[in-house]
Amino acid sequence: MTTNTAPPSEALSRLAALLGTAGCMTGDQIPAACRSDASMTGQQGPVALLRPASVEEVSQALAICSAAGLCIVPQGGMTGLAGAANPGKGQVALSMARFHGVEALDATAGTITLRAGTILQQAQQQAEAAGALFPIDLGARGSCQIGGLIATNAGGLRVLRYGTTRDNLLGLEVVLADGTVLSHLNEAVKDNTGLDLKQVILGSEGTLAVVTRAVFRLAPQPAPIHSAICALPSPEAAPDLLRRAREALPLQAFETMWPSYLTLVEGLEQTRLFDETPGLAVLIEAECPLENFLETAFEDGLIVDALLAQSLAEAQTFWALREGHRIDAALPGLMNFDVSLPIGEMAAYVAETTAAIGNIDAGAAVHFFGHMADGNLHAVLHAPGADAAGLHGMEAAIYGGIRARGGAISAEHGIGTLKRDWLEHSRSADEIALMRRIKAAFDPGGLLNPGKVF
Amino acid sequence: MTTNTAPPSEALSRLAALLGTAGCMTGDQIPAACRSDASMTGQQGPVALLRPASVEEVSQALAICSAAGLCIVPQGGMTGLAGAANPGKGQVALSMARFHGVEALDATAGTITLRAGTILQQAQQQAEAAGALFPIDLGARGSCQIGGLIATNAGGLRVLRYGTTRDNLLGLEVVLADGTVLSHLNEAVKDNTGLDLKQVILGSEGTLAVVTRAVFRLAPQPAPIHSAICALPSPEAAPDLLRRAREALPLQAFETMWPSYLTLVEGLEQTRLFDETPGLAVLIEAECPLENFLETAFEDGLIVDALLAQSLAEAQTFWALREGHRIDAALPGLMNFDVSLPIGEMAAYVAETTAAIGNIDAGAAVHFFGHMADGNLHAVLHAPGADAAGLHGMEAAIYGGIRARGGAISAEHGIGTLKRDWLEHSRSADEIALMRRIKAAFDPGGLLNPGKVF
Ligand SMILES: Cc1cc2nc3c(=O)[nH]c(=O)nc-3n(C[C@H](O)[C@H](O)[C@H](O)COP(=O)(O)OP(=O)(O)OC[C@H]3O[C@@H](n4cnc5c(N)ncnc54)[C@H](O)[C@@H]3O)c2cc1C
Ligand SMILES: Cc1cc2nc3c(=O)[nH]c(=O)nc-3n(C[C@H](O)[C@H](O)[C@H](O)COP(=O)(O)OP(=O)(O)OC[C@H]3O[C@@H](n4cnc5c(N)ncnc54)[C@H](O)[C@@H]3O)c2cc1C
Repeated sequence: MTTNTAPPSEALSRLAALLGTAGCMTGDQIPAACRSDASMTGQQGPVALLRPASVEEVSQALAICSAAGLCIVPQGGMTGLAGAANPGKGQVALSMARFHGVEALDATAGTITLRAGTILQQAQQQAEAAGALFPIDLGARGSCQIGGLIATNAGGLRVLRYGTTRDNLLGLEVVLADGTVLSHLNEAVKDNTGLDLKQVILGSEGTLAVVTRAVFRLAPQPAPIHSAICALPSPEAAPDLLRRAREALPLQAFETMWPSYLTLVEGLEQTRLFDETPGLAVLIEAECPLENFLETAFEDGLIVDALLAQSLAEAQTFWALREGHRIDAALPGLMNFDVSLPIGEMAAYVAETTAAIGNIDAGAAVHFFGHMADGNLHAVLHAPGADAAGLHGMEAAIYGGIRARGGAISAEHGIGTLKRDWLEHSRSADEIALMRRIKAAFDPGGLLNPGKVF
Repeated sequence: MTTNTAPPSEALSRLAALLGTAGCMTGDQIPAACRSDASMTGQQGPVALLRPASVEEVSQALAICSAAGLCIVPQGGMTGLAGAANPGKGQVALSMARFHGVEALDATAGTITLRAGTILQQAQQQAEAAGALFPIDLGARGSCQIGGLIATNAGGLRVLRYGTTRDNLLGLEVVLADGTVLSHLNEAVKDNTGLDLKQVILGSEGTLAVVTRAVFRLAPQPAPIHSAICALPSPEAAPDLLRRAREALPLQAFETMWPSYLTLVEGLEQTRLFDETPGLAVLIEAECPLENFLETAFEDGLIVDALLAQSLAEAQTFWALREGHRIDAALPGLMNFDVSLPIGEMAAYVAETTAAIGNIDAGAAVHFFGHMADGNLHAVLHAPGADAAGLHGMEAAIYGGIRARGGAISAEHGIGTLKRDWLEHSRSADEIALMRRIKAAFDPGGLLNPGKVF
């Protein structure tokens, strides 16, 4: 346990002295944006917003907070969907936004060293300018940060081809709650020198350490990408189509939209893909032309129609549907879900869960979509008339079906606060107890992002 | 801390009662093979060899040992090269050899569930019989076990194509020192439900938990493999050749042999590849014919000669050289090294280190080879006349060059006892202290494989 030697107010003055006005905000200076991530569930403003501009400042700021027993909530781009970056009462928010940029890029070795506050899109652009590909991509690319990607072990739109954040992270530097800097920024693909600390920090949602810098592997730029949206007769046809696509194509994406989701986003984007809404729509991308593959799939009855993107702009309209950026505004109060389950069971799971939600609340609707090839489904639940008990019943329906299938209640968005009470659906009490002991090994005072995850 | 309620002798009787004669051996019954792994550095026999035949038996045996304060050394196939499975005085060895076999194989989903005692080659054969590929392969395939692969996060011969053990492990079941079973055998590719415990167990060399079962991902069987050995004018040409091979070929292997290594194994295998020993020999394998690639490389002066394998048997003779199974017998007392460093620095590192060893001991020889594409070099050091101080000086030369280049003193073999004193060359004191705290979170009594790694 940390002993509280300095009272919070004195600590705040020391932080202000250390970080200056640009680096330490209190009261009305604190922007509203740091109350809540994209789940829009945060209520509380932090007592202070720290914006350190160097690793040294992160370290010293954490040491001051630790000594004063102040709890710290690391914040990236605030695009998370699990409430994990939301401050609690009396807590200090620590944003990495001012510590950004590419520190090194070696196109020959295929590595890039990034500061934690770098926006994903900036990393992508710099890689592209050097003739390489930053392997991670997701809809929040314009706001989410490298530190947030690591803290949530983000997946995204290219997992099928390049893996998750974990699969692309080579070296990591973090600062522990007490200010200790652990720097292991080496670029080795293979490194079995004792416990691989970064592996447990990946996906720890700010509970173990503050990420300051990271080395990622870059991929070669892919061949030109061809995109199509396929209309399937039913969701049951999708696993077959996926298996064939994997065998026949250098596949980059295989993203699904269930009928109610498709109808919703078609309305929001004011477009309509097919005359008749298909049993399932699948967005396929590959590094080769798709005509032959689609023709055979059509002949074999796996698809009933398909639209090939004739231009990059058209491919982007496909992605606008899949990413559904207008949904948040259109369905206020919606809840996001992000589950893993065996691909062969998705069709039955969606049908069963949709029916269960309808039985609980006839005014509620649940829309499924997501990264099928990774065994990952997303859902948005909109239940404008439901009270807390009703919502809880609907969550139970969604997570109950996952538990029954041995799936994961979070595939990529993490646990945060929103899924904390459901963690036992995926992890045993003994596992959660061990997670808490590991948390204590990193952060004995329990000061980093308390109340999140476990 | 565990309280020692039962004295060791009573614990041993309880273990004998639990596990029977096949499952609990003491005194002369204990085979000599469980004294040392393949590093041949173990001196001590264990006080007992436990061979549980179920997860339940592992759990109960560990609970008994824990209660008696007995230290436990997990043992797999004893092919490790770092001394990590060697028992110390008064310790109990726990072999998983009796708990073996495939529990489930789903070729459609591409997953296999294995017991920890399964020999790698058996897993490979069962996968092949089902039309799939078990993605890990290494020279010790005939003896090493699935549990050992996980505990060392083994790499091997196909990392370039399929990644390390970490990249292919989906689910894991382990037993903690106190007997608690943690079973997370799900098959999800993406699972962000709290801390990913298996990630820190991977490569922990038996210090955190005993592995009992695991789910691996299977790969599709590759297209027919084409093999060639290339003669390079110098080691400096290798990074260029590798870059081109990555761009032009569906590359499976890119394995290097430095001249003194090649001469050594050619002598042992009674074969000779090239009229003149090349500056570097590279074994290339790809899923397509190699003729065109090799012709262009020849025209551009990157290679001076090449031998294409005309049959599987011929490819195997290439691999026999690269794997060098006869070296151990030929060079008694040799020491193995396994380091990571940037590919572009390998040639200079090898030249510098070879010269340094020669300066320390004119009777010593060091032979370099290994998985260049993974940034991984192996070396065998043979110094028959050297005393302990001399050997220490040679180790310092080998590891000093790695530290100077920010590399890793172990790429894949692990730390065990042999590299424990050198760990600080790759990890900071703060990192090692954190590893110890994580160890305590898993094993508060410090009973699992004490004295290893950190
Ligand atoms: C439109 C949209 C699309 C999305 N698509 C995907 C997707 O396809 N795949 C996917 O996985 N996620 C997706 N997400 C979720 C989210 O974008 C990711 O989780 C992202 O990685 C969060 O990054 P961030 O910087 O915004 O983190 P934040 O939301 O700020 O924080 C997330 C967590 O990380 C911690 N954290 C942030 N920075 C640090 C740091 N430097 N050190 C330690 N902890 C830190 C926070 O404490 C918190 O626990 C999407 C979100 C939106 C809004
Ligand atoms: C000829 C040869 C070639 C090799 N090639 C490679 C290579 O290319 N790549 C590579 O990475 N390694 C290689 N190795 C090293 C070795 O084969 C691997 O490290 C292998 O993974 C060890 O497996 P094992 O079952 O023999 O483990 P052991 O040697 O028995 O044990 C190794 C470590 O794992 C622990 N352990 C074993 N089983 C369990 C369990 N069930 N639960 C918990 N801990 C356990 C032990 O305590 C010990 O710390 C090679 C070795 C030889 C002899």
